Amino acid sequence: MKTLSENASFGGKQIVLSHASAACSCDMTFSVFLPEEAKDGPVPVLWFLSGLTCTHENAMTKAGAQAWAAEQGIALVYPDTSPRGDDVADDEAYDFGKGAGFYVNATQEPWREHYQMYDYIAHELPEFLAENFPLDMSRQAISGHSMGGHGALTLAMTLPGRFRSVSAFAPIANPTASDWGRKQFLGYLGNNEDNWRAHDATLLMQEKGFDGPILIDQGTEDQFLDLLKPEALAAAIAARRQPATFRMQKGYDHSYFFISTFMEDHVAFHAEALYSD
Amino acid sequence: MKTLSENASFGGKQIVLSHASAACSCDMTFSVFLPEEAKDGPVPVLWFLSGLTCTHENAMTKAGAQAWAAEQGIALVYPDTSPRGDDVADDEAYDFGKGAGFYVNATQEPWREHYQMYDYIAHELPEFLAENFPLDMSRQAISGHSMGGHGALTLAMTLPGRFRSVSAFAPIANPTASDWGRKQFLGYLGNNEDNWRAHDATLLMQEKGFDGPILIDQGTEDQFLDLLKPEALAAAIAARRQPATFRMQKGYDHSYFFISTFMEDHVAFHAEALYSD
Repeated sequence: MKTLSENASFGGKQIVLSHASAACSCDMTFSVFLPEEAKDGPVPVLWFLSGLTCTHENAMTKAGAQAWAAEQGIALVYPDTSPRGDDVADDEAYDFGKGAGFYVNATQEPWREHYQMYDYIAHELPEFLAENFPLDMSRQAISGHSMGGHGALTLAMTLPGRFRSVSAFAPIANPTASDWGRKQFLGYLGNNEDNWRAHDATLLMQEKGFDGPILIDQGTEDQFLDLLKPEALAAAIAARRQPATFRMQKGYDHSYFFISTFMEDHVAFHAEALYSD
Repeated sequence: MKTLSENASFGGKQIVLSHASAACSCDMTFSVFLPEEAKDGPVPVLWFLSGLTCTHENAMTKAGAQAWAAEQGIALVYPDTSPRGDDVADDEAYDFGKGAGFYVNATQEPWREHYQMYDYIAHELPEFLAENFPLDMSRQAISGHSMGGHGALTLAMTLPGRFRSVSAFAPIANPTASDWGRKQFLGYLGNNEDNWRAHDATLLMQEKGFDGPILIDQGTEDQFLDLLKPEALAAAIAARRQPATFRMQKGYDHSYFFISTFMEDHVAFHAEALYSD
């Protein structure tokens, strides 16, 4: 483990680290915010998964979550969005390859060797965090933006019992029916679409749902609405009678200005679940 | 005037614009945050001047001021830190030329033609804002970081009656005695050091002070403390009996993590002055 930077932030610390990942067969960078309370013992954890083209850094510097996490005494974890390094396969498109891991375990060449982002986020990174930081891993919640909203929702539904609450900002809600999804799932997972189902929040909502509260914010002026397909997920939530709050936010787009505006609500929403019982 | 982007943010709008500047003889870009209240009439204005290497964008995306400005119903203005364009003189150093205008009017070649940042911020941009946006120019306050903290303090003291309050994050506090100042003032203003005095917050504090409240935050772990010289300004404030709050913040460095941590305090401090009477 190598500490790349450490900055005082809202009474706590914002740390960037790299470590050797067995799942992804490369060094991975992530950042973690520890509130002041972490000095005195384990604190709850809120994961934030980022969108296409992002690294660990975008949300750390632009989403403004530290202010509210500090207020609630909650740690934040910002993973990267794909494996990295010169020997990692890539694609020219911004939405495939590096910066676009889609939180799946690739089974196809040339992606298979490094693109194991589901295992990395679901298993390797939480184990690493539990060993190295004062985190209460019995109190975890997860959120994310766009591709990261897709990741948050699909991880929450495929790891029952892991996360107490899940939220998303403008998630890719139905990737098996979208150009943000079909190309990537075909490339990473192959042409058997049965293998795509565990990575589609709408299909997972239809099949299993989530045992906890859900909060989703989606801007009405999002330039990617046709790719995100919020209507499919909203319908699935309603059909299942899944406890959830789905908000269409008037005038907001897909940017970090949208995310930062509603971050206070999301952190407060997760804090309620993380501190219950 | 050309609108480069417009994003909904905290119930208001974050807008980036470019316009032809007569003072700087080039197109200048700036950003402005308008809170929701601006729909109904003029709102007070808080200026934020940025530091070395920054554009209008850094503070807009990383300082987190919109949350608090929205709460207080205050507009934010983020100017650029120098003239821009292919025909604008530059220097290889990060702290001279583009991104390093130091908020002075250059009198020396080759800087004289474009580097008129004092006039741009003190006169041209406020006039442009008053004509084009619902801003109450009788209620202005100013803040800034590092070189921008220097700019905020020196503009506030050389434009008496303009700003109701001034604050700074880790300002370059005594540039005539620092390598962040002497090189630039020599280059932009020439070797008569009398012409430097109006651009040194410590000297201005000794000579005139400020007719209003001052708030200054400085991190104790700032990697540039030797260049910033907070002790000179703190001594001048105390010697003058200037109403001011000067806080040395334990553990904080020079980064935006420091700025965002204390931004709520700064906006609240300015709001009190902006809404008095």
